[in-house]
Amino acid sequence: MTSAERVAVVGTGLIGTSIAMAAARAGDAVRGFDVDADVLSRSAERSGLTPAPTIQRCLSGATLVLVCTPIPSVPALVGEALRLAPDAIVSDVASVKSHVKLEVQRTVEPSSLDRYVGGHPMGGSERSGPDHASASVLDGVVWVLDETAAPGSLERLEAWIERIGARPVRLAVDRHDRLVAMVSHLPQVASTALMGLAADEEAGEPEILLLAAGGFRDLTRLAASNPHLWSDILLANRDAIVRALDLYVERLGGLRDLVAAEDASQVERAFARSKEARLSLAAKPQVKAGVAVLQVPVPDRPGVLAEVTATMSEAGVNIEDLQIVHSPEGGLGTVHLTVAAGAAQDAERALRERWFEPLRLA
Amino acid sequence: MTSAERVAVVGTGLIGTSIAMAAARAGDAVRGFDVDADVLSRSAERSGLTPAPTIQRCLSGATLVLVCTPIPSVPALVGEALRLAPDAIVSDVASVKSHVKLEVQRTVEPSSLDRYVGGHPMGGSERSGPDHASASVLDGVVWVLDETAAPGSLERLEAWIERIGARPVRLAVDRHDRLVAMVSHLPQVASTALMGLAADEEAGEPEILLLAAGGFRDLTRLAASNPHLWSDILLANRDAIVRALDLYVERLGGLRDLVAAEDASQVERAFARSKEARLSLAAKPQVKAGVAVLQVPVPDRPGVLAEVTATMSEAGVNIEDLQIVHSPEGGLGTVHLTVAAGAAQDAERALRERWFEPLRLA
Repeated sequence: MTSAERVAVVGTGLIGTSIAMAAARAGDAVRGFDVDADVLSRSAERSGLTPAPTIQRCLSGATLVLVCTPIPSVPALVGEALRLAPDAIVSDVASVKSHVKLEVQRTVEPSSLDRYVGGHPMGGSERSGPDHASASVLDGVVWVLDETAAPGSLERLEAWIERIGARPVRLAVDRHDRLVAMVSHLPQVASTALMGLAADEEAGEPEILLLAAGGFRDLTRLAASNPHLWSDILLANRDAIVRALDLYVERLGGLRDLVAAEDASQVERAFARSKEARLSLAAKPQVKAGVAVLQVPVPDRPGVLAEVTATMSEAGVNIEDLQIVHSPEGGLGTVHLTVAAGAAQDAERALRERWFEPLRLA
Repeated sequence: MTSAERVAVVGTGLIGTSIAMAAARAGDAVRGFDVDADVLSRSAERSGLTPAPTIQRCLSGATLVLVCTPIPSVPALVGEALRLAPDAIVSDVASVKSHVKLEVQRTVEPSSLDRYVGGHPMGGSERSGPDHASASVLDGVVWVLDETAAPGSLERLEAWIERIGARPVRLAVDRHDRLVAMVSHLPQVASTALMGLAADEEAGEPEILLLAAGGFRDLTRLAASNPHLWSDILLANRDAIVRALDLYVERLGGLRDLVAAEDASQVERAFARSKEARLSLAAKPQVKAGVAVLQVPVPDRPGVLAEVTATMSEAGVNIEDLQIVHSPEGGLGTVHLTVAAGAAQDAERALRERWFEPLRLA
């Protein structure tokens, strides 16, 4: 079924409002509800959804319900949606799936369970609130769905996700939770711990952040995320997080012991393995031919990035990734341009013609 | 003394050649030597330094010697420079200072020690080889110098560093080593460990990297660095690295225990502290008025970054930082533009006029 749905969005923050916008763009009728009347009215203003005065009015007659609230309230709201919207497929967007599913199974009428499909769109994590919503938050993102849900419900939800522009991927909920614990939740904790440690050191060593260059910034960028949201996520995915952290601490401890024992060859071997893995990650999945990274020194002034990117544009080269690496004290920086390997020569030539001095790294 | 020096560069890789280029730009005469004749001739071609056939010829008559070789060979070469260039100030650029200083003190003629000043320019770490050198690698970077070196030598080296465009900062060598262990070496190990762990998991969970989004990429970018170089650095700074890793593992363990105990308020508190610290780091030192981050959804096609950056350029807005956040599967991405807080309104207005939809994050 790929025709229009009557979509009810419960919880109209960043993700709920973004889903409303993507659904409306695809031709669906969208109602929304939020316990915070101000959030709801801002969402309505931004997305054009019809604000409902009560959750009952929001759910009544819906064919598809998306519960987009913080994790702790998801199971009860899924149950309410299954009761109040008896013809609807009900899904949620919580970033931890096993915990939510168990709670839902424990509390709802068993006969309605075949209309519930747990889901997780892998996008939009750093922001919050309807004002930051956009249909594009979901464009092309992987949207994980519980592979053990009832096939009919699963297929209908998949069709709808594709229609609004995202990419459904089936996974078992426990695998989902284990994988995001490793590649999303663990990086978050690693980043937060590093920033916290450096901040503590700064009390006694005020120069420490003077020496903190691009690498430290990369590693700590995630530490600026929403603390309350993350507390919910970590606790809901407790077992997988604890496992991931234990594995991480074990690995760090192993490297620590190699350094303490001055085992240069084993240290080098561990670094070489990780380097190889990171280089194979550097290519986005759809860039089959591999990528090249050009390092371009640039002065730190208005317009210089425009020159670099316009040069790429004129040469017909798509920029796969771009990173600015500042010198610690500013004044001059380096732009790392990632382009498809096949386009690297064109990119280099075009940059040199404009007097840039690109250096090819990979 | 800020007049021209006769600079001898021993080791003409990335940093040595970059120093040669910055010195030549400032009017110094520069000779170079490298045990690898090919590296030396590529350096000469790139930088214009005069290649010396032997280290003796390189050092003879020099007024300033920079030893820019890998860490293990630095102490012996500093000793040789102090002997063969009896009128020169001798410095090195090794990223670990205590170890090198101890070795130098142990091996060289004590009367020549007042001409040695250990140093560390905090730039250029991800690349290697003379072909990637540029004077701009050093522009504006913090260049740490041993604060306990003889005052006359220290002042003369400081004057030269300023003249070639970098920024001298005095620190005790053990403090330098402790600080870089925390903000440079620890992030490197943390990144390498995370990438290694995910790579191991991938063997049994091929989908894992499908779920690895921007945060994971940020955290693992450093893992692509040179394994041999890093093995040398970690071992030379062993004690400080072990201390930093122990503190980091302890902090991760603390967070792990809070999650395991489901202590939501303490988890949230730790995250809030790190968030605050990261936000205060987000401003580059010279941006006193603070910065704003604009999130701009963009389609993934040639020219779109050129449009964004040209828009900023036309509006007279300097881009302090720019990051591309891809959706995991491509198709659409988000550009995070960091601009001075005072310029954020102009930047937003200009982007909206061009039909972009920037969202202000901070």
